[in-house]
Amino acid sequence: MLPFVRSDLAQFTSYQPHISSSKAEDTETVTQFDKLDANESPYDVPAQLKEKIVWTYQQLIETNRYPDGGHDSLRNAIASYVNESASLESSVFGAENISVGNGSDELIRSLLIATCLGGEGSILVASPTFVMYAILAQTLGIPVIDVGRNEKNFEMDLKAAQAAIEQKQNPSNNSENNAPIRAVFVVHPNSPTANPLTEAELTWLKSLPENILVVIDEAYFEFSQNTLVGELTQRPNWVVLRTFSKAFRLAAMRVGYCVAHPDFISILEKVRLPYNLPSLSLATALVAIENRQLLLESIAETQNERSKMINALSQHKALKVWDSAGNFIFLRFTPNSSSSQDDAIKILHHKLRATGTLVRQIHSGLRITVGTPSENIRTIERLQTTLKNI
Amino acid sequence: MLPFVRSDLAQFTSYQPHISSSKAEDTETVTQFDKLDANESPYDVPAQLKEKIVWTYQQLIETNRYPDGGHDSLRNAIASYVNESASLESSVFGAENISVGNGSDELIRSLLIATCLGGEGSILVASPTFVMYAILAQTLGIPVIDVGRNEKNFEMDLKAAQAAIEQKQNPSNNSENNAPIRAVFVVHPNSPTANPLTEAELTWLKSLPENILVVIDEAYFEFSQNTLVGELTQRPNWVVLRTFSKAFRLAAMRVGYCVAHPDFISILEKVRLPYNLPSLSLATALVAIENRQLLLESIAETQNERSKMINALSQHKALKVWDSAGNFIFLRFTPNSSSSQDDAIKILHHKLRATGTLVRQIHSGLRITVGTPSENIRTIERLQTTLKNI
Repeated sequence: MLPFVRSDLAQFTSYQPHISSSKAEDTETVTQFDKLDANESPYDVPAQLKEKIVWTYQQLIETNRYPDGGHDSLRNAIASYVNESASLESSVFGAENISVGNGSDELIRSLLIATCLGGEGSILVASPTFVMYAILAQTLGIPVIDVGRNEKNFEMDLKAAQAAIEQKQNPSNNSENNAPIRAVFVVHPNSPTANPLTEAELTWLKSLPENILVVIDEAYFEFSQNTLVGELTQRPNWVVLRTFSKAFRLAAMRVGYCVAHPDFISILEKVRLPYNLPSLSLATALVAIENRQLLLESIAETQNERSKMINALSQHKALKVWDSAGNFIFLRFTPNSSSSQDDAIKILHHKLRATGTLVRQIHSGLRITVGTPSENIRTIERLQTTLKNI
Repeated sequence: MLPFVRSDLAQFTSYQPHISSSKAEDTETVTQFDKLDANESPYDVPAQLKEKIVWTYQQLIETNRYPDGGHDSLRNAIASYVNESASLESSVFGAENISVGNGSDELIRSLLIATCLGGEGSILVASPTFVMYAILAQTLGIPVIDVGRNEKNFEMDLKAAQAAIEQKQNPSNNSENNAPIRAVFVVHPNSPTANPLTEAELTWLKSLPENILVVIDEAYFEFSQNTLVGELTQRPNWVVLRTFSKAFRLAAMRVGYCVAHPDFISILEKVRLPYNLPSLSLATALVAIENRQLLLESIAETQNERSKMINALSQHKALKVWDSAGNFIFLRFTPNSSSSQDDAIKILHHKLRATGTLVRQIHSGLRITVGTPSENIRTIERLQTTLKNI
């Protein structure tokens, strides 16, 4: 239609922001929603930190000046936290191991640009998983191989994954869709299914050759306390992604980061936009790191609430509820409990929304963020009421 | 070195942030710099607006929640301003004509991704011009054709530009460097040379076929009051870029925007990161639009100071100073005034920095941002002192 636009982009469907940030349909009766659809923290930063952030803006930031394009102090602070988070000596990672992004999204795009662009590679993912890997790859014309997961515990289909790697490295024909796999993306724990990497998955990832980038997205690390950053010292082809949007409660500020070998970090720094983050986002992330004890205090409550919710919902024979290492829960209807699982989930999602609870309908299931104790009680009550009437 | 990295990226040199945001070498004697190297406004937003921004953060923004991914209210407000800025009826442009970016940089990258990626096209620029077009194209593996400008008034070499277009549309051989030109980037007025588009340039841009995207970057529009947005209603292959980083004084916030045909805007919205801007940046841009009279008040002073500086500096026979439609001035040494112009400019740049004035050394000249009246007086004095001693 527009003759200057890439032919493959016209058909492409973009990421749909979650419902709470778009127009909800059933808002006539509901005036306030419990927002449990975006895996955010249910708590704003404490008032004393909000004061500190405001003070920083008023006293230290000139609105008319470009931000610090090098992120030096923030990268140093993040490196210290990364060492601490994995109980590593303080000298293991430094600023040269860190690149800061406009959310993890920008870093994912940079990783794709650095490795796969221009027919040099395709990526491997295992659905259900975070959808942005595939969406951002598609916007860049990068082929996506999706090997799927088993439906019992959501472990990746490792046989299919290995077969895909081998087939692409030695393609039978040279068509352009046969670019070798240059990057594998996993979330640890996975979203939306909340499972951490299994031993088998880890062994397979470790077996991958050095010409394949392994991306471990630890967006939910603080809720699992299970990190793989320690592996990076021996594996120059691994990177770990983290974010300030979840446990650190800064989703509004858009700060993510990447931990990797300094040589690869310098490539990512070349690829990123020179002023990719506003001054206040950089300053707020620094305040958050410096006050991490205060901010991460709420994690214990989230973990506790998570257990309570899983217990309560598992009582329902109609529901299959999985264990979770994140700040969210994944559930489906048990087979045979309903003629069409997709229809039943759709009704459940709709009824929850109509009564004031926003959750994410995805992959024939619901992904429910763990909220405040009172939000969680309401969620359980509303689910129970709805299940009785389905 | 890292076998998973794109082969062409290793050699690539990235954008160097301007000196004021990196380590200055001569800071031993100078404690405070006049920052005239980034074409920023010399003034922070007025205290009353800073209060309003703080109030917005404290009362309306939940730090733990993702930003509005649709930008609806900001896009509406920008559309009104765009209509007003070109004296168009209020119905000409609406939200559907606007895409908001993380600075213009993100929009430039999206424009490149949407048109040229994967061997589908190359871009045409005319140096000296804004360097990010070429840098971002290179990170994406997109070829850049640079046709240059004449050294008298910095008009593009239109003969070379037309020849490049024709040669690439009908390449004699099919090598991959012969992708047709899919996008032409111009700044209006140009940076670093401060000249607006000439009639001849405009006629040439209008003659380009509909399968070539024409990008008019109006980053400095508010200082020139000369806009081409009116052309967009008849030209679906034209886009205009604007920014809040210059006249609106929000460089720290990273907000740029693009005006274009709704069909192309919907493509750009697909390509951009779903949460590309922090909540406070979106809110601040809205506050700035609503209070534009207050913010844009300082433009008259800048225009006035610009004339004074051009007059003062033109007195020096050793200098060639060009007219300016922006908030900055470009100058070089006159030919014959020095054996090596580049060496002389380097010394001038260095001496200015040593005495406390940061300016941009670029294309054998200096680009000096118009600052506050007292900054400008100091700049002229320091230039005069240095010129006596060269």
